[in-house]
Amino acid sequence: MQTDTSVEKAQQLLLDHLPPRKTETVSVLEANGRTLAEDIFAGYDLPAASQSAVDGYALGEGNLPINSTVQLKGQLGAGEVPEHRLEPGEAIGVLTGGSLPPNCQAVVPQEKTSLAGLKLELMEQIKPGQNIKQAGEDFSSGDLLLSVGQKIDPGAVALLSAFGINQITVFSKPRVGILSLGANIVSWEEEPKPGQVRDSNTPMLLALIGYQGGLAGDLEIAVADDNTDLSIKLRQMMAKNDIVICTGGSYFAAGSEAATLFQAAGAQIFYWDVPIQPGSHTGGARYEDCMLFALSGNPAACFVGYQLFVAPVLLAMQGLNPGPVWIKAKCTNEFSKKTGSRRLVRGRAEYTSRGWEVTILPGQKPSMLRSLINCNALIDLSAGHPPLDEGMEVSVILLNNNIA
Amino acid sequence: MQTDTSVEKAQQLLLDHLPPRKTETVSVLEANGRTLAEDIFAGYDLPAASQSAVDGYALGEGNLPINSTVQLKGQLGAGEVPEHRLEPGEAIGVLTGGSLPPNCQAVVPQEKTSLAGLKLELMEQIKPGQNIKQAGEDFSSGDLLLSVGQKIDPGAVALLSAFGINQITVFSKPRVGILSLGANIVSWEEEPKPGQVRDSNTPMLLALIGYQGGLAGDLEIAVADDNTDLSIKLRQMMAKNDIVICTGGSYFAAGSEAATLFQAAGAQIFYWDVPIQPGSHTGGARYEDCMLFALSGNPAACFVGYQLFVAPVLLAMQGLNPGPVWIKAKCTNEFSKKTGSRRLVRGRAEYTSRGWEVTILPGQKPSMLRSLINCNALIDLSAGHPPLDEGMEVSVILLNNNIA
Repeated sequence: MQTDTSVEKAQQLLLDHLPPRKTETVSVLEANGRTLAEDIFAGYDLPAASQSAVDGYALGEGNLPINSTVQLKGQLGAGEVPEHRLEPGEAIGVLTGGSLPPNCQAVVPQEKTSLAGLKLELMEQIKPGQNIKQAGEDFSSGDLLLSVGQKIDPGAVALLSAFGINQITVFSKPRVGILSLGANIVSWEEEPKPGQVRDSNTPMLLALIGYQGGLAGDLEIAVADDNTDLSIKLRQMMAKNDIVICTGGSYFAAGSEAATLFQAAGAQIFYWDVPIQPGSHTGGARYEDCMLFALSGNPAACFVGYQLFVAPVLLAMQGLNPGPVWIKAKCTNEFSKKTGSRRLVRGRAEYTSRGWEVTILPGQKPSMLRSLINCNALIDLSAGHPPLDEGMEVSVILLNNNIA
Repeated sequence: MQTDTSVEKAQQLLLDHLPPRKTETVSVLEANGRTLAEDIFAGYDLPAASQSAVDGYALGEGNLPINSTVQLKGQLGAGEVPEHRLEPGEAIGVLTGGSLPPNCQAVVPQEKTSLAGLKLELMEQIKPGQNIKQAGEDFSSGDLLLSVGQKIDPGAVALLSAFGINQITVFSKPRVGILSLGANIVSWEEEPKPGQVRDSNTPMLLALIGYQGGLAGDLEIAVADDNTDLSIKLRQMMAKNDIVICTGGSYFAAGSEAATLFQAAGAQIFYWDVPIQPGSHTGGARYEDCMLFALSGNPAACFVGYQLFVAPVLLAMQGLNPGPVWIKAKCTNEFSKKTGSRRLVRGRAEYTSRGWEVTILPGQKPSMLRSLINCNALIDLSAGHPPLDEGMEVSVILLNNNIA
């Protein structure tokens, strides 16, 4: 087991030891935001046949100067398939997306014409091919439409739907179990007795996991000194979940409950204790195909540990970019503390006309919740960093963001 | 009805005419990502009583120099409530988050001590109050915790859970119905006959709506020339949905089906036709408490129209910032067309070490789907804008982004 591992080394150890990614087949609509686990090819041309790009008139001749007059031969209704050849000097009304008659050379938009009886005058010059969507102009039969690793976005949903592909294989959403260790912890839905506190970490982690595409798995609050066999509980959770997060009991020097549990289960522990504040008492491990995390029970330390260690794993298991997304930003306020160990200060980043700015949020003690409200950024201060002044440029990890 | 309204004027007309926002009471976990519709105050102090911030030893005296020795009086188990006063020169073992004995003046972390029998030596100087979380240090009884308009994020979920607040009132998710107008359109799940095309706009819109917190409502494909009474269908959809989007049939000069329908229903039409490409044929209206949109049936025009007009309304109805989020970015490639009407070019924006960059996506015809894959940005070119060269700075609307 490595101790005092750097954040980056711990992240690399985790990403180097991920279990095989699971896949599942889902409907295209369910796949929105998920990552494709197969290559998908075009089975035919899109559009399948030439179509009009506008509401207007299909022309039998495609090189007509302004003020030319052609003979209107009728109107194709929506969905109507034309059968008769269009000769030079002839036109027929067509709708956007409608099929074009054989020999159609161009389409003139309705608003660029003037109609008197069946005489149609063109109010602009029309070149061959104008306003025609050629068969296959978007995608040709055999084209690679989307490949493994493609994030399914609304455009991809539209593309798959246009090809009638309704079921696709994507990487599965990891199921995440949470084991809260601590004798003075009660569920957030219970009334604490004196000396007890509500477990706010589990709902916070569920919210974070939801943002990043994970599924809530088993949730347990466990006490070491009651009759519960914690090892059995952990083993059951590992069997049913892709990730298990233990909160609390992560302090190794104090006889870490989490580390003892992980070792007893036979897990491979990649690191324990990372020199950061908040949340230095943290560990990462793997048992069979389940990734294990020990995070501090202090709320802000739990939040930071989730963002630094769990989030990259949760994203990578779904085939998504594990991040983190880094920016440089200017501080809009001060932070008066000198930094001992590397410090992750909770902040709110905004992109303004002056560039990226970050505001240090109030309540930066590890035990406090206040700095987590509106937090979308971690300001990364290296060990020994001086206090922050307004206007100082800092390195920032952007959270929950899709810009990279 | 205004025609040739600017994008900004159309957006303002829509936002000025929103129906009253609806609210609902949901569990805190369901509320993640939603917007609070009530003010919430602290019913008591958080923490409720003073606690230890570390695993260590509670001290009866708070001003002890390095190498002081105190007498260990025992260990408080997790959740144990101490009863006996701690006198100067005494210490008792405590756990992080544990209650402190009466008269405790400071806590020394376990790793800063050396224990021999019951003699505890302090390896660093301990000041009064050190490592004590004072009652109310995070929030005091009566504090405004969160106010109307607050976005519920994981930190807010944790805060509410810590106070045992499990149900909160948030703005409702708007229900969005989609009416696809077009005789040659079949559902994306059906096999089109010659001359027909699959409706890829409905699945694309469902994906977009899902990203922005909307709920899928009624989905209909309607043909003007069959026996369906379109007016009745629209009226039914308006009664059951907060927003109805019509795709196709938006071209006013050609006898817009959508505008005819909106007028027949007695809707207040705010604008029709906006001088942009793609998607100039577009309208916005309201009937009773339902917002109505007509978007082009061309996929890229439908996408752009959704982003410019529907998205701000959908966000504002949920109490979220309607945007859009603007950035300046440098082009990484060229776009050879001169711009006539104001043009929204589909792009992929990335924030790099060189700042914001945007890549013009291939396949920029309104009828093509290709430019919508990986699209997270609309490059906004004013009317008459010259072609784009690599390295040119452009104004960009960032899509689906949480940075502002």
